[in-house]
Amino acid sequence: MTTAAAPQRILGIDPGLQRTGFGVIDRHGARLSYVASGVIRTDVKQPLAERLGTLVRGIQEIAGDTRPDCAAVEIVFVNVNPQSTLLLGQARGAALAALVLAGLPVHEYTALQVKKATVGTGHARKQQVQDMVVRLLTLSGTPQADAADALACAITHAHAGHGMGAAAQAVGMTAQSGRVKFRRGRVVG
Amino acid sequence: MTTAAAPQRILGIDPGLQRTGFGVIDRHGARLSYVASGVIRTDVKQPLAERLGTLVRGIQEIAGDTRPDCAAVEIVFVNVNPQSTLLLGQARGAALAALVLAGLPVHEYTALQVKKATVGTGHARKQQVQDMVVRLLTLSGTPQADAADALACAITHAHAGHGMGAAAQAVGMTAQSGRVKFRRGRVVG
Repeated sequence: MTTAAAPQRILGIDPGLQRTGFGVIDRHGARLSYVASGVIRTDVKQPLAERLGTLVRGIQEIAGDTRPDCAAVEIVFVNVNPQSTLLLGQARGAALAALVLAGLPVHEYTALQVKKATVGTGHARKQQVQDMVVRLLTLSGTPQADAADALACAITHAHAGHGMGAAAQAVGMTAQSGRVKFRRGRVVG
Repeated sequence: MTTAAAPQRILGIDPGLQRTGFGVIDRHGARLSYVASGVIRTDVKQPLAERLGTLVRGIQEIAGDTRPDCAAVEIVFVNVNPQSTLLLGQARGAALAALVLAGLPVHEYTALQVKKATVGTGHARKQQVQDMVVRLLTLSGTPQADAADALACAITHAHAGHGMGAAAQAVGMTAQSGRVKFRRGRVVG
């Protein structure tokens, strides 16, 4: 076919105060291809506002460099530790704010949806999700865990328009070899 | 004195997902004067990312219009309801991100510090704090509760550079009559 639809570029985000994973993929019909991934790390010794600033500027830099069409963010749940819940909530709020300010439509997925979309079952372990990310995007290396989770969230959104069967299709159809490239500077793998 | 220091403009923020209070004051030495206050409200029927977007754009609009030198934000604590803690955390994270992106140094104060700085005792009730805001800024009306809390946080920062005795001083010294002006459009009282 020569009249393929324009590819859709998706930025996946796995938010956290200490480490926020990001992963960018392109969807050309049912085919997925890897663009970039990595981790935004914040300095535990800095005040909260500065750490959130690092996170937000990192997301702005990624969105500016890769020009995604939309964002996919994992829905977080409350932690057993209320203080951790508050910190995670603040990181997630800052990340969502950065994405909205970058003009990106934001789609949210639960961990269950991510597991179903990548592995095919909601009972999958985290490692299985990460292994499927490597397979679905035919990566030559294994991304850092938070980056892999962000890529899985982007894949989930890519499949959301296709029905859940698309994961298996993508494995068979992708021919392009992705490269696991980590970003320089503040945004590192 | 003719060589008074340049006034410092402080933006106080009391973050919340449904209502975020804001209050802007000027500090000229020990004298405080009211600039603006109000509430940013978000639509409960909208998705979380959109609500955080409304909050962040509201803060950007206020910072752009009033050009503060710094921001003061109340430190929130975990709620008995973990889901509420997560939502409040997300709102606070988005607010802090907006302030940092606006280039403002952010100072954080606990409710105890705000009570001590405005009323003089950490055992003050919320209503006493709000009454003192009206007195300290010689307001002709009573701001909405979240706006008053935001003004109290800004006052706390104004006093932080002066020692805690400054609150009483300011009451005696301020001559300028403030106006409780609420903002039009998305940012309403």
